[in-house]
Amino acid sequence: MKIFDRPGFPNPARIRIVLAEKGLDQQIEFVSVDLIGAEHKQAEFLAKNPSGVLPVLQLDDGTYISESTAITEYLDNLDGNPRLTGRTPKEKAMIHMMQRRAEADLLDAVGIYFHHATPGLGAALQAFKSPDWESRRQWGERQREVALNGMRYFDTVLTSSPFVAGDTFSLADITVFAGLMFADVAGISSTDGYAALNAWRAKVAEIPSVKNRSGQQFEPDDLRRLGF
Amino acid sequence: MKIFDRPGFPNPARIRIVLAEKGLDQQIEFVSVDLIGAEHKQAEFLAKNPSGVLPVLQLDDGTYISESTAITEYLDNLDGNPRLTGRTPKEKAMIHMMQRRAEADLLDAVGIYFHHATPGLGAALQAFKSPDWESRRQWGERQREVALNGMRYFDTVLTSSPFVAGDTFSLADITVFAGLMFADVAGISSTDGYAALNAWRAKVAEIPSVKNRSGQQFEPDDLRRLGF
Repeated sequence: MKIFDRPGFPNPARIRIVLAEKGLDQQIEFVSVDLIGAEHKQAEFLAKNPSGVLPVLQLDDGTYISESTAITEYLDNLDGNPRLTGRTPKEKAMIHMMQRRAEADLLDAVGIYFHHATPGLGAALQAFKSPDWESRRQWGERQREVALNGMRYFDTVLTSSPFVAGDTFSLADITVFAGLMFADVAGISSTDGYAALNAWRAKVAEIPSVKNRSGQQFEPDDLRRLGF
Repeated sequence: MKIFDRPGFPNPARIRIVLAEKGLDQQIEFVSVDLIGAEHKQAEFLAKNPSGVLPVLQLDDGTYISESTAITEYLDNLDGNPRLTGRTPKEKAMIHMMQRRAEADLLDAVGIYFHHATPGLGAALQAFKSPDWESRRQWGERQREVALNGMRYFDTVLTSSPFVAGDTFSLADITVFAGLMFADVAGISSTDGYAALNAWRAKVAEIPSVKNRSGQQFEPDDLRRLGF
C-alpha cells in the first residue's frame, strides 16, 4: 500500500496516527505531495483524488481511496478488529456521529477559516480559490466562530466522557486532536478554560500512536516556506 | 426506536429509504418536528441533537444518534449484514469515500445554497442565521457551482459503474439521490445532458425502498407554507 500525503498537515496526521495505532506504519510506502506548491491541484494528482485533497491511500490492486474517514475504515477493518471505527452497531453510530461533528464543527471549520480568511498555505494555491476575496473572508471568519463553538461543545462532551465517542480512543478522537493541531497553526485559540478538553488533549498526546510523532512533523523546508 | 424527522425533506428521506431497505420501517415510531417553524432550533430539540438538524434516531436505551451516516451505520449493522455501508474493508472504504463526496459536493452544497442564497424554509429560521446576508448569499452561490460540478462528477462515475460506490446500491447512492431531490426543490438544474446520472436516477427510483414513497412526501401543510 502507498499513502500520498505530507508530514505535519492535519489530515495526513490523522492517517499516520491510524497506521501507528494499527501497527501498519512499517508496511506503507509514503509518497510526499507538495501541498504548498499546489501539487495536489494538478492533473496528475486529481486523477488519484478529484477532490484535490490529501491524504490518499493506494491499495495494492491500484484502487485509490481518499477521505480520511474512508481510509480509516479500510485500515481499521483489515484485522477484523475495528476498534477505531466501532465493533457494535451502537459503537459505529456514536463514532460516526462524533466524527462528523469533529469535522463540521472543528477540523473543516478551521480549514475554511485558514484557507479563506488568511493567506493559508501561500501564493501557489490562490489560483485555485474563488476570486471574491471579501465574501470568502467573511465566510471564513464565521467558520472561526463555528470552530470556537466546536471547542466549547467537545469540552462539554469530555466533561462526562473519557473519550469523544465513549469509553475508548476512536476515529472521532483523532479528528478532534487533528482539529486542535490545525487550530494552533491557524491561530484560533479560545480564552475560555476548557479544562476537560485540555485534560483529554494531554492524555491523547501520551498515547503511543500519537506520542511517537516521527514522520508527523512538518518538513523543515515547509516550515520555512510557511514563514515559521 | 424512534425517529425525529419530517417527511419530504432530504436527510429524513435518506433514513426512510434505509429503514425500508432494511425492513425496519414498521418497527419505528416517527415523531414529526416542525422544520419550517424552526422547532429543531429550540432548546428541547437541541438537547437531542446540539447540531439542530434532522433526522435523529432515539434508541430504546434513550441514546440519541444524529447524522444520517451514523444512523445508517446503526440500522445497517443491526442484522449483521451491512450491505448499505459495506461488508469488506474495501467496500466500506469505497462507500464512505463516495458518501463523503455526495455530501460535500452535492447534498450539503445544495443545502448551503438553499438556506443562504435563497429565502430557504422561510421567516422563522432567519433568526438562526448570520445577519451578513450578502456574504452568505455569495458563498451560497459558490456552493451552487459546487453542486453543479458534483452532478458532473457523479455522471462521470456512473458512466463506468452501475452504482455510485460500485456494483451494488449503497449509502452513497441514497445520499446522491437525496441530493438530486433537494436540487430539484432548490431550483438547481443543469443544462448538460448527464445521461449516465439520469439513467441511474431512473433505475434507483424503481428500487422498492425508494419507489414506495409512503411517508416520504411533504405534508400538505408544509407544501402550502413553502409556497408550492
